[in-house]
Amino acid sequence: MCRWLTYCGDPIYLDKVLFEPRNSLISQSLRARHSHVTTNGDGFGIGWYGDRPTPGVYRDILPAWNDQNLKSLAHQIRSGLFLAHVRASTGTATSRANCHPFAHGKWLFMHNGQIGGYERVRRRLEAMIDDRFYCHRVGTTDSELVFYLLFSEGLETDPIGALTRTIGKIEHLAREAAVNEPFKFTAVLSDGAFIYAVRHSTDDVPPTLFHRQRDDHFMVVSEPFDEDEECHAWREVPAGQMLVIEKDGRLDMAPLVPRI
Amino acid sequence: MCRWLTYCGDPIYLDKVLFEPRNSLISQSLRARHSHVTTNGDGFGIGWYGDRPTPGVYRDILPAWNDQNLKSLAHQIRSGLFLAHVRASTGTATSRANCHPFAHGKWLFMHNGQIGGYERVRRRLEAMIDDRFYCHRVGTTDSELVFYLLFSEGLETDPIGALTRTIGKIEHLAREAAVNEPFKFTAVLSDGAFIYAVRHSTDDVPPTLFHRQRDDHFMVVSEPFDEDEECHAWREVPAGQMLVIEKDGRLDMAPLVPRI
Amino acid sequence: MCRWLTYCGDPIYLDKVLFEPRNSLISQSLRARHSHVTTNGDGFGIGWYGDRPTPGVYRDILPAWNDQNLKSLAHQIRSGLFLAHVRASTGTATSRANCHPFAHGKWLFMHNGQIGGYERVRRRLEAMIDDRFYCHRVGTTDSELVFYLLFSEGLETDPIGALTRTIGKIEHLAREAAVNEPFKFTAVLSDGAFIYAVRHSTDDVPPTLFHRQRDDHFMVVSEPFDEDEECHAWREVPAGQMLVIEKDGRLDMAPLVPRI
Amino acid sequence: MCRWLTYCGDPIYLDKVLFEPRNSLISQSLRARHSHVTTNGDGFGIGWYGDRPTPGVYRDILPAWNDQNLKSLAHQIRSGLFLAHVRASTGTATSRANCHPFAHGKWLFMHNGQIGGYERVRRRLEAMIDDRFYCHRVGTTDSELVFYLLFSEGLETDPIGALTRTIGKIEHLAREAAVNEPFKFTAVLSDGAFIYAVRHSTDDVPPTLFHRQRDDHFMVVSEPFDEDEECHAWREVPAGQMLVIEKDGRLDMAPLVPRI
Repeated sequence: MCRWLTYCGDPIYLDKVLFEPRNSLISQSLRARHSHVTTNGDGFGIGWYGDRPTPGVYRDILPAWNDQNLKSLAHQIRSGLFLAHVRASTGTATSRANCHPFAHGKWLFMHNGQIGGYERVRRRLEAMIDDRFYCHRVGTTDSELVFYLLFSEGLETDPIGALTRTIGKIEHLAREAAVNEPFKFTAVLSDGAFIYAVRHSTDDVPPTLFHRQRDDHFMVVSEPFDEDEECHAWREVPAGQMLVIEKDGRLDMAPLVPRI
Repeated sequence: MCRWLTYCGDPIYLDKVLFEPRNSLISQSLRARHSHVTTNGDGFGIGWYGDRPTPGVYRDILPAWNDQNLKSLAHQIRSGLFLAHVRASTGTATSRANCHPFAHGKWLFMHNGQIGGYERVRRRLEAMIDDRFYCHRVGTTDSELVFYLLFSEGLETDPIGALTRTIGKIEHLAREAAVNEPFKFTAVLSDGAFIYAVRHSTDDVPPTLFHRQRDDHFMVVSEPFDEDEECHAWREVPAGQMLVIEKDGRLDMAPLVPRI
Repeated sequence: MCRWLTYCGDPIYLDKVLFEPRNSLISQSLRARHSHVTTNGDGFGIGWYGDRPTPGVYRDILPAWNDQNLKSLAHQIRSGLFLAHVRASTGTATSRANCHPFAHGKWLFMHNGQIGGYERVRRRLEAMIDDRFYCHRVGTTDSELVFYLLFSEGLETDPIGALTRTIGKIEHLAREAAVNEPFKFTAVLSDGAFIYAVRHSTDDVPPTLFHRQRDDHFMVVSEPFDEDEECHAWREVPAGQMLVIEKDGRLDMAPLVPRI
Repeated sequence: MCRWLTYCGDPIYLDKVLFEPRNSLISQSLRARHSHVTTNGDGFGIGWYGDRPTPGVYRDILPAWNDQNLKSLAHQIRSGLFLAHVRASTGTATSRANCHPFAHGKWLFMHNGQIGGYERVRRRLEAMIDDRFYCHRVGTTDSELVFYLLFSEGLETDPIGALTRTIGKIEHLAREAAVNEPFKFTAVLSDGAFIYAVRHSTDDVPPTLFHRQRDDHFMVVSEPFDEDEECHAWREVPAGQMLVIEKDGRLDMAPLVPRI
């Protein structure tokens, strides 16, 4: 498992949410409280939207709590929409290519979970990646694979449809391959204007997801920060739901129904 | 391009050939003399056969001249058959997974060269990897891809046949895809008992290859060491030839004829 | 805090003790059971004695559980006396220079603990390093500093005296500087012929130390491996004691009395 | 030797000067034209002033031409005053702590050159660092040492005086130690408001330094970019001179006279 967070609202310096809170994401990289795997030391990454058409990305394989570069960058970089992730590998190697967020064009993607029986279905899933995107798949994670399947299913023009079709196809293929292990998919996508956060699993224990809405921002996180009196402000995203957040402040929640 | 060396003979400490000679492989990582690309600083690796059934491998992305671990390991490790490589990337990322030598079972493989038009043929070539080996392909290099094609073509039972068939299929597919850029393949394979070194290209400038035979060892290298009076002992491997060296001292050379 | 182990006996492959046992050192890097700090992911290192006069050392800043090189090396390297360490930083940076074991000449050193009030006494302690050794201090840890103080106090000719004098001087200087935090020193030194393991603290909670004696080897560890029926074989080293183990099989234990 | 550049003027994205020009700094990391050492692959770093009181810093030990993070950061970060450096080590280890620019408070510092006979004078120079700064020295380079000597000599209140006194003291100590090798010091300091660039050596071959003035910016560089028709715009800084550039556009040049 992993831990991630997404912020969307008035521009702030990244360290305000990455480092400052008690049980910040960086603290969670050392010891997460809501996860079966408590240490998330197999790499980290940040992605943020600024003035350029495409987002910036900084990823490295050191544990996040160790990285002086991350500290400095988070102190300097100001953004109104950013993603951050600390990784606990579910089997694949530790390398920058396997760190989240994954980026392509203006899109960023992070995932907590795994494709059950990945090694048995990996080849067939990779075969489903459209030619235009195949050469961009440079790692070995199931997460990056899902990302490029989303593109192959039309993410750029129909994100919600791409999500439902991609999840549907992965699950269909897993059934065909007689895979028993669940497909766990608590994930977030963004194009710099919208955020799509999903909490989904084929079993009844999808990885956790919480969100919080304030006057000046939204946050969607794997695990809340302890902020004393504000603890109650975090609301759990129910299993099977998808949040759609617009940068201008709208939030919608609806069921995510996989389809082929 | 890259630089590599292979040693086969009486066991020696690796640093004797990796560090000690003038224009050693480590020097070549900083400035190679026989290569168009003079710096080979995109990673390095060593593979060596000892007492275990499978070889040891140490690979890292730091330039070889910088690495204290490599220095220490080369000083301690003693072997009668070892391979070493310093990398100059031909486009793919710098990561441990993309460093040579590649290892699978008892086999090691290093490559200097590239598959012409790689990005256009990569997908079709990856589709040719047999299911048993597909999950072991964890990087993005054309070199690692060739390695698993060799396995798919029967490397474990018929190494020479696997080489001719693999090269043949790559070239056939490149012609089908109307690729003009050459396939350059100066490479070495070993299973701990034999060494197969090939100097091949579809154009007439295959990457360099030299060999040297002494009473107590053979060496096959991209670029000779300067050892004054011994310079003359290095003999160029003609284009299109394959060396087969047995650990007990036999050496054969024969043309390599690609076939489908 | 950190976790470490030392093996001395019939030569074995390092992975037999580094990876194979339940709660092996590599497992302890992810989650140690006997330590207040449970994750030791700020780097690792191994040092081993072979045929050369000086020991080999391999250290890296990745968490040990991630490192494919370590796995391969531990599988290939065979030694009758080796040390291994997984690090949890007590404040200083994560870099190879700050990983244990530290090596100089034929000596290796590992430390679990810290110099209390280190930043306040660091300069004065560094001033006590003899000129001959000063240039070898390349990191910033208190551990490496202790190592070169040991050399300055005559480690090469009188290891036990050097230990008592070094600890004594550190504690004297700390008292002078009105430092309240304790000096915790559970450490091991070796020259390839002897092992000196110390469990010492100025308070009454020195970091843990256990040892085990078998027909064919000794082991001294921060934390025992769970090996079911063999658990009872681990004996705690009492606070304030030093073990001296000879490679040929002798073991002595005696109090360590700091002196100036 | 190394290569570095400093930009001061209208805010631009860093990649406009780091990556875009022919013979950009990143190209120079692979092959510099004006330097005896052509490869500068022992690490790199950038420092930039933005909205915070202190500058951001990003440093890593990979060769600059390899680093995807650097590419992304340079594409996103916009600054009116920034420094960048690619390193060729003069002997000390490759680690993040040894990469330039060095940062302390609002100050940044980069250096091309070396303290002659460094190992013989290192200890005495380190003893001259004021207590307030000693604990911030975390690497082993002569460059970082000079940086903290500058602070000890009053950099924060009298930068030019600090430069003359620091250089004077280093040279005095070198003469006392009968060091023959020259002190080469082509360096730059900034506090975000001013830039102090120095081209100095005790012999007559100080490392190169060029500057260029445009309507909207200044640049000071080790080696000019090839920009065809603009080549003539680069002017060599004479040996023994110091440039003082104000952020608002003033530039002064005057001799730098070391003094004790």
